[in-house]
Amino acid sequence: MELLKETLSMITGADKEAMKRTRSKWDGLVKPIGSLGQLEELTIKISGMTGKTINPIKRTAILVMCSDNGVCSEGVSAAPQFFTRILAESMSKGLTGVATLASFSGADIYTVDLGIIGNPMDANVISRKISDGTNNFVLGPAMTYEQAVKAIEIGIDISDRLYSQGYDILGTGEVGIGNTTTSSAVMTALTGLDVDITCGKGAGLTEDQYSNKKEIIRKGIEINKPDKEDPIHVISKVGGYDIAGMCGSYLSAAKNRKPIVMDGFISSVAALCAIKLNPYVKDYIIPSHLSKEPGSSFLMNELKLTPILNLDMRLGEGSGCPLAFSVLKAAMYTLENMGTFENTALSSEELIDIRE
Amino acid sequence: MELLKETLSMITGADKEAMKRTRSKWDGLVKPIGSLGQLEELTIKISGMTGKTINPIKRTAILVMCSDNGVCSEGVSAAPQFFTRILAESMSKGLTGVATLASFSGADIYTVDLGIIGNPMDANVISRKISDGTNNFVLGPAMTYEQAVKAIEIGIDISDRLYSQGYDILGTGEVGIGNTTTSSAVMTALTGLDVDITCGKGAGLTEDQYSNKKEIIRKGIEINKPDKEDPIHVISKVGGYDIAGMCGSYLSAAKNRKPIVMDGFISSVAALCAIKLNPYVKDYIIPSHLSKEPGSSFLMNELKLTPILNLDMRLGEGSGCPLAFSVLKAAMYTLENMGTFENTALSSEELIDIRE
Repeated sequence: MELLKETLSMITGADKEAMKRTRSKWDGLVKPIGSLGQLEELTIKISGMTGKTINPIKRTAILVMCSDNGVCSEGVSAAPQFFTRILAESMSKGLTGVATLASFSGADIYTVDLGIIGNPMDANVISRKISDGTNNFVLGPAMTYEQAVKAIEIGIDISDRLYSQGYDILGTGEVGIGNTTTSSAVMTALTGLDVDITCGKGAGLTEDQYSNKKEIIRKGIEINKPDKEDPIHVISKVGGYDIAGMCGSYLSAAKNRKPIVMDGFISSVAALCAIKLNPYVKDYIIPSHLSKEPGSSFLMNELKLTPILNLDMRLGEGSGCPLAFSVLKAAMYTLENMGTFENTALSSEELIDIRE
Repeated sequence: MELLKETLSMITGADKEAMKRTRSKWDGLVKPIGSLGQLEELTIKISGMTGKTINPIKRTAILVMCSDNGVCSEGVSAAPQFFTRILAESMSKGLTGVATLASFSGADIYTVDLGIIGNPMDANVISRKISDGTNNFVLGPAMTYEQAVKAIEIGIDISDRLYSQGYDILGTGEVGIGNTTTSSAVMTALTGLDVDITCGKGAGLTEDQYSNKKEIIRKGIEINKPDKEDPIHVISKVGGYDIAGMCGSYLSAAKNRKPIVMDGFISSVAALCAIKLNPYVKDYIIPSHLSKEPGSSFLMNELKLTPILNLDMRLGEGSGCPLAFSVLKAAMYTLENMGTFENTALSSEELIDIRE
């Protein structure tokens, strides 16, 4: 509990003065004011984190939190449970979607075992296992409050280490069969939104399986009565270690005043938890894409974040992060290298014309 | 007229069999079917153009059509007219937004003078000048029908050369103060949509200037009576050389069975013209971003294209193209390198579980 408490106490909001300085640099570039839209806003947001105008995005990594979910026994997922382990083992071989996209964009991948059932046969998986999966939340809490705190603190700890090793930005990823179910449950518990809104068909359920999934979530919430004022309580009752670990990564980013990229649905539910723990965390989150999971657009509204990519993706794993890294790198490069009104050799009289 | 006629007669639709083969390659990768969304669809679309499954996107270029618009005398733009020439001259120096983003993404820039007033003092600008700007369309046609055809054919010719020189993909760009006015006019004439929908504030007009801009467009259409069935007629009456040139690039892409990236509002109006000339052209167009110009989302619906980036950009110049190139490269790399179900070492019994 110490690391979590200390982290929460160290988080403060954006540096507005630094943001102003970056906006004013953009306004001196040879274009109508604001016309590069989000490319401008993203770099301005990052200035608010670091206090600097230019923030090169060179070393990038995606942290993939892997864990199994007890609720899988209720038939909520189209994929079999052992697939969590298989995917975790496939990360360092570059076989998964996120690993392929990361390799393309030059990002490193760190795979963490928070609660995979069985031990992944790959030395590259960082073992921080809390237990072999969580409990089935239809029968009681998914985990204890202490386990939820532990998972969050593992997320903080590993992210702290990566930032201090010199990564300029982290991306949040996850693997855990059944985690759209836990994410919908956490979102429903925290927002009060109906399961019809928060819950989608995940990786290809039939209509019957989809009805069952929603029923299971309703039952889990009814039985466990998660306290919507305490995201840790909610995660412990109906969440998963992966959500908790990602929540910790967001907190670490805010503490270290560094950017962190949000991926799809599960990642945004973890972001919601982190923001509920400390609202300033929002100032450190860069959205990537709008997931096809139905809860995603509601979450984007709730979090007041605008996704930069619109690719109808619903793979998870952190697969949106490497694509967002590319856009961020392009934005930062433009801020640093685009011409100013002065070096396009305009006279000062001409300048007045254009800037008005 | 010969080149245009010949080009139009050579255009055919997508190779559906090739698209099926690419979709089936995606379906064998270790992920739920379709879960990489537009990353999958984009590569499938390109297969429909080339007939091949793997289409590396290595050599990329943006073709920037530059031209002045007579309607500028009506005070429709916040920027002064000579800025067209200044921006064209700044391209090869890497100072403009599109040049900076292109340099970041490794794309080449080709700047074409179709009708800049005065001669750009930069030997890198390809001179194919038709006249020093167009006429003010409030007083009569912007150009003759023959001039519109000539501008389209220049677009075809230069794009043909670039594709045959080995470029894998082209992006469409433009510079021309006043060209959101001509684009709104062309869009209104072709779609019958009200000017309130097709016309935005461009690069920062006041409310009064905005009302004036809409009034000027209405007047131009009233006086010139463009024939909505003939996009060349429409361009000649109320359009610009830049729109015509870009229209030619789209036709060339379709003829050469190669992809071409659409940028923002002006670029989509040119795409609409090309598609009206031959509906198969749509099969060769890759959208990039949703421009902040209000007509853009209506155009995307009209063209049935979904933009992949959502960046609130409204700079034009082709600035969305380099960002789209990055996403396309990532998509193609993933198709080529991501793991299959087989090489994640699953037994065939397990495989059945997952694929169902």
